[in-house]
Amino acid sequence: MSEKLKPAARVAGQRQDVWSIINEAAAASPKQPVVNMGQGFFGYNPPDFILNAAKEALNRVDCNQYAPTRGRPRLLKALSEAYAPHWGRKLDPNKEITITTGANEGESRPAPERHLLDLIDSGQGMLSAFMAFIEPGDEVIVFEPFFDQYISNIEMPGGKVVYVPMHPPKDGATKTLSAAEWTIDFDELERAITPRTKMLVINTPHNPVGKVFSREELQKIADLCLKNKIIILSDEVYDRLFYVPFTRIATLSPEVEQITLTVGSAGKNFYATGWRVGWLMGPPHLIQYVSAAHTRICYSSVSPLQEACAIGFEQADAHNFWTTCINDMQAKMKRFNAIWDELNIPYSIPEGGYFVMVNLAKVQIPEDYSFPPHVASRPRDFKLAWFLIQELGVAAIPPSEFYTDANAHIVEDYLRFAVCKPDEVLEEAKERLRGLKKFLKQ
Amino acid sequence: MSEKLKPAARVAGQRQDVWSIINEAAAASPKQPVVNMGQGFFGYNPPDFILNAAKEALNRVDCNQYAPTRGRPRLLKALSEAYAPHWGRKLDPNKEITITTGANEGESRPAPERHLLDLIDSGQGMLSAFMAFIEPGDEVIVFEPFFDQYISNIEMPGGKVVYVPMHPPKDGATKTLSAAEWTIDFDELERAITPRTKMLVINTPHNPVGKVFSREELQKIADLCLKNKIIILSDEVYDRLFYVPFTRIATLSPEVEQITLTVGSAGKNFYATGWRVGWLMGPPHLIQYVSAAHTRICYSSVSPLQEACAIGFEQADAHNFWTTCINDMQAKMKRFNAIWDELNIPYSIPEGGYFVMVNLAKVQIPEDYSFPPHVASRPRDFKLAWFLIQELGVAAIPPSEFYTDANAHIVEDYLRFAVCKPDEVLEEAKERLRGLKKFLKQ
Repeated sequence: MSEKLKPAARVAGQRQDVWSIINEAAAASPKQPVVNMGQGFFGYNPPDFILNAAKEALNRVDCNQYAPTRGRPRLLKALSEAYAPHWGRKLDPNKEITITTGANEGESRPAPERHLLDLIDSGQGMLSAFMAFIEPGDEVIVFEPFFDQYISNIEMPGGKVVYVPMHPPKDGATKTLSAAEWTIDFDELERAITPRTKMLVINTPHNPVGKVFSREELQKIADLCLKNKIIILSDEVYDRLFYVPFTRIATLSPEVEQITLTVGSAGKNFYATGWRVGWLMGPPHLIQYVSAAHTRICYSSVSPLQEACAIGFEQADAHNFWTTCINDMQAKMKRFNAIWDELNIPYSIPEGGYFVMVNLAKVQIPEDYSFPPHVASRPRDFKLAWFLIQELGVAAIPPSEFYTDANAHIVEDYLRFAVCKPDEVLEEAKERLRGLKKFLKQ
Repeated sequence: MSEKLKPAARVAGQRQDVWSIINEAAAASPKQPVVNMGQGFFGYNPPDFILNAAKEALNRVDCNQYAPTRGRPRLLKALSEAYAPHWGRKLDPNKEITITTGANEGESRPAPERHLLDLIDSGQGMLSAFMAFIEPGDEVIVFEPFFDQYISNIEMPGGKVVYVPMHPPKDGATKTLSAAEWTIDFDELERAITPRTKMLVINTPHNPVGKVFSREELQKIADLCLKNKIIILSDEVYDRLFYVPFTRIATLSPEVEQITLTVGSAGKNFYATGWRVGWLMGPPHLIQYVSAAHTRICYSSVSPLQEACAIGFEQADAHNFWTTCINDMQAKMKRFNAIWDELNIPYSIPEGGYFVMVNLAKVQIPEDYSFPPHVASRPRDFKLAWFLIQELGVAAIPPSEFYTDANAHIVEDYLRFAVCKPDEVLEEAKERLRGLKKFLKQ
């Protein structure tokens, strides 16, 4: 190929990412088919009232044509009303909400039919927000573990990522504790702020940690952002899956609301990660620029599924849907995590979302176990993931991918499991994980 | 608002664009409801076999979850097979095709139910291609009239747009001629090429001109690109709507294919502009980087509608769909353009697509007619558009928006009309356009 036809630096020379590593490991495993507890897609369908709404929308001429770039009016109105009880007021559907192509996105690889793998969550809504406010050299604070797509989205407009690690509980290797025990060191956070700090990203309920930030923690973060005039980008895509009280940072005070953009996702809310409908909410002076950026990136978002989501929000309460979501996911959490209690392996009890972080310090990988070079060169969690795939046929995600190299050691004994799967898949995974017994030091 | 919270330059200070100007004009018109011949959305539904395919896909768990970033395997395979007769071979579905979120996009404004307006076509597929290959300072040649989204998409990764105008037929003000008579000055094109020229964008069938580039014209363009090692980005989103022989530039020779990316659109192919499914096709050494860029922008595209499009391509021939598309749209063209023949107003007879460019030099706007300042300051085509909306209640798009200021005069007598509307809408528009009679100089 001619030198002149070469790609831009932003897409050239990518190192192999966690998704393709795990994917290839699964394809090469002797335990076929591998049970995929890695990828965060749902193993079951949205409820019928949502699917029927989508089918009805497909019959309507206007629903099959371009949606307005800011979103279909019915969805904007439905969001305004659905969020009102949480926000304490109705957001202005025309000025304080904008629809995006997937608030939360997923990285998925070849064919989900054939492979494992995946993703986590954030997305084009996030990219629109960064494109709206980041000039080259501006800094964005991101907590580790981060969603890996944040990084390329921040770097695309020329931003610089500044990392602040979350710390697992000190006795996480021996005790099962609440995910609330993962903490931010606020001195570290304050030291990370510079005059170039333009935005700060938080994620609550948190993927992969399962933590729901407390009101006190959010207030400390917000105070620092108010003091330093930093825009808060709050990724709340798991906002209907909380098992402890959930505070939205935007609702702390009118002053905090003025500097906060909140990200939501129909894919997460309605068990339909493939629908690519998300939204950002915030004050008009921020939302207008997010909307302008969205127009330049994806223009408008998928029209018939926006209408379906509108109807979903309108009808959710009548179907007791949000309560059912929480109850169902908590039941899956309990069902799956029973295997860790049984094996006496500690984990972080999630306060929200559908991921669980498990500490596998007790697992002894045989000393002579052979790893391919691209796994051998990574932290222990990559080896654990490889080992589970090869020996048990269960796939999970090594979270050190979501820390910088300097901080990767913090989570090298953990793996992330996604429980948004049918109960029989969870049971199959548990049965296979019993095979860990012979590798445990007690 | 604090200075520190200000938006990035790329989204700040936008001048009012053609869409919002026409939109507001329509909202203020005394002739309500205005007949919208401006916006390029379809006024009718996709055929039942497509809609049924979408409804079936919504029943499938895997179709509601993330699609692979490169696209659902069934759609990639269907595209490979559907394009084979045109390409002379089957493209490799895993290496020579990638799915995007709308190949062609539309800018649409507030509510399509209430307003007019909008858009034309290109999109996130285009953005992915520019993001894949453009480094700051690289130049991209774009013909005028251009799709306005090309410009922001080229500038987002730091590219510089270099414009080359298409010239309307010299006697376009007096004679109805084929859209083929719009031509490129190849000396002008050659002079526009510099050592920094990285890409060249063509659009055939062309929006808004309606021209299908001839094999000879494409060969001249391709020869220049081969000689200067320029990547060709061929926007072929109207590739199923051609009324004269249609050549794809990628098929001119194996050498040309090696430097060409071809853009396609399910929205245009299946009358569903709101579905946001598009694709890029090309050699693996180009497609791999487009795919990498797409991953960073929109990750994966809407999953159930990808499956529907796959089934659409699989079943289209059995339904004689592609032939019906051409026959139906040609019938609409003839039906609508009869009004210009009746009024003795010349137009460019489209060779493809669903837009017609009409030369309204004969229309005499009363000398004392009053325009608002933001219209008065624009070329005559904006005044014509305003006048038609106010006096007749028919909306069309002024094409000088798609030329640079220096070249805007070239099309100041033209307006673009979209004919992808129900026959009764076309008849209503014609009836209203008869009101032009009293403003014509013959």
